[in-house]
Amino acid sequence: MRIAELSARTGVPVPTIKYYLREGVLPAGELSSPNQAHYGERHVERLRMVRALVDIGRLPIATIKSVLEYLEQPNPNLHYALGIALHDTMTTRTEVEPPARQAVDELVERRGWLVSDDAPARDVLAEVISVLRQLGEGEILELLDEYAAGVERIAAADLEFVSRRSEPDAIVRSAVIGTLLGDALIAALRRLAQENVSARTFDQ
Amino acid sequence: MRIAELSARTGVPVPTIKYYLREGVLPAGELSSPNQAHYGERHVERLRMVRALVDIGRLPIATIKSVLEYLEQPNPNLHYALGIALHDTMTTRTEVEPPARQAVDELVERRGWLVSDDAPARDVLAEVISVLRQLGEGEILELLDEYAAGVERIAAADLEFVSRRSEPDAIVRSAVIGTLLGDALIAALRRLAQENVSARTFDQ
Repeated sequence: MRIAELSARTGVPVPTIKYYLREGVLPAGELSSPNQAHYGERHVERLRMVRALVDIGRLPIATIKSVLEYLEQPNPNLHYALGIALHDTMTTRTEVEPPARQAVDELVERRGWLVSDDAPARDVLAEVISVLRQLGEGEILELLDEYAAGVERIAAADLEFVSRRSEPDAIVRSAVIGTLLGDALIAALRRLAQENVSARTFDQ
Repeated sequence: MRIAELSARTGVPVPTIKYYLREGVLPAGELSSPNQAHYGERHVERLRMVRALVDIGRLPIATIKSVLEYLEQPNPNLHYALGIALHDTMTTRTEVEPPARQAVDELVERRGWLVSDDAPARDVLAEVISVLRQLGEGEILELLDEYAAGVERIAAADLEFVSRRSEPDAIVRSAVIGTLLGDALIAALRRLAQENVSARTFDQ
C-alpha cells in the first residue's frame, strides 16, 4: 500500500508517518519507483505499536526506537528490554533522602521480594516518599504495606498476562506493552475505584 | 528571606523561581525596596508543592496553577479538585472502540462500583483496552477483574491516607497529592513486585 493508505489504515497523519521514517522508528517502505514507496502489514503493526507507546506510554521517540530495535533481536532478554523501556519513567529527578531509601529496603525485605539492590525502582519509590514527607504527607509510610499488598495482586495478573505467550520474543513484547500500558490502565482503574470509595464515604 | 535563600532552602534554581513568579504559580514576595522582595514559609511550602507536581506528577504549569488556585479557596470540593488535577492525565487521545467502552461499563457494574456514567476514567480505561486489542493483546480483558481487585485494595489505602485529615481543605490537599504522586508510587512498587514475580518464575 502507499503512504496515504497506510495513514488511512492506522489513523496516523502522513506528515507524522514521514517523521517516524526519518527518525528510524518505522522501517522504510519498498521503493517501487524513485519517489514512490510501498508499505506492508508489518508497517501497520509497527505504526500501531509506536502510537501506543507515544499516546498511552508517553515515551519519547528515541526511547521507543531503542525498545523496538531491541525487541527485533533474536532471544530478547526480559529484564533488559524492560530496563530500556522503563529508563525514562524510572529515573529520579530529585535527591533521595536516606531514611526514605531505608524504608523502601525494609519494605522489600518485609514482603520477601526478590529484587536486586540496584533496581532503579527502589530509588524512584524512595524519591516519591521523600517528596511526600517534604509536603507533610509522611504518613504514607504507614500505608506502604497496604499499597504493596494491592500491587502484589496486580503483579500476579501481570505475570498471567505474559504467561499466555510461549515464544521468548512474544513474552518480552507482552511484558513491555503490559508494563508500559498497564500503568495507564491501573491509573484509570484507580480513579474509578477511588470515585466509588469516595462516593460511599463522603457523599452520605 | 531573599530569593537566593528561598532557592537554597528548596533546591529550586533562582531562574526557575522567577519563572514560577511570572507564571503565577508562586505568589509574589513582599517588596522591601523597589527591586527587593522578601519571601516567607508559605513560599517554601508552595515551591515544594509545585516541584512535586512538576517532578513526580509531571503536570504542566498551567494545570498546576489551576489546581493550586482552587485548593486555596474556602471549602474546596474533592471531586472538583481531582477533576482539575486529573484533567491532563485523564484525557483520551485516540478513538475509543464501543466494545471496549462496554467492557468497562460491565466491569464497573460487576464490581458494584458507584461511578458516574460520564467519569473521564471510563473513557481512558476503554482507550487503553482498545489500544491493547489493536496490538493483539486483547486478552487483557480476561484479567480486568484481577487488576480491579488489586486496585480496590489500593483505593482503600487511598481513603485511609485521606481520612487522617479532618479539615476539608486538608482532605482535598491530601487527596490531590495522594492521587497524583500515588500513581508514581504505585508504578515504582509495581516494578519491584514484577521483578520479584519474574525472578521467581523465569530465572529458575
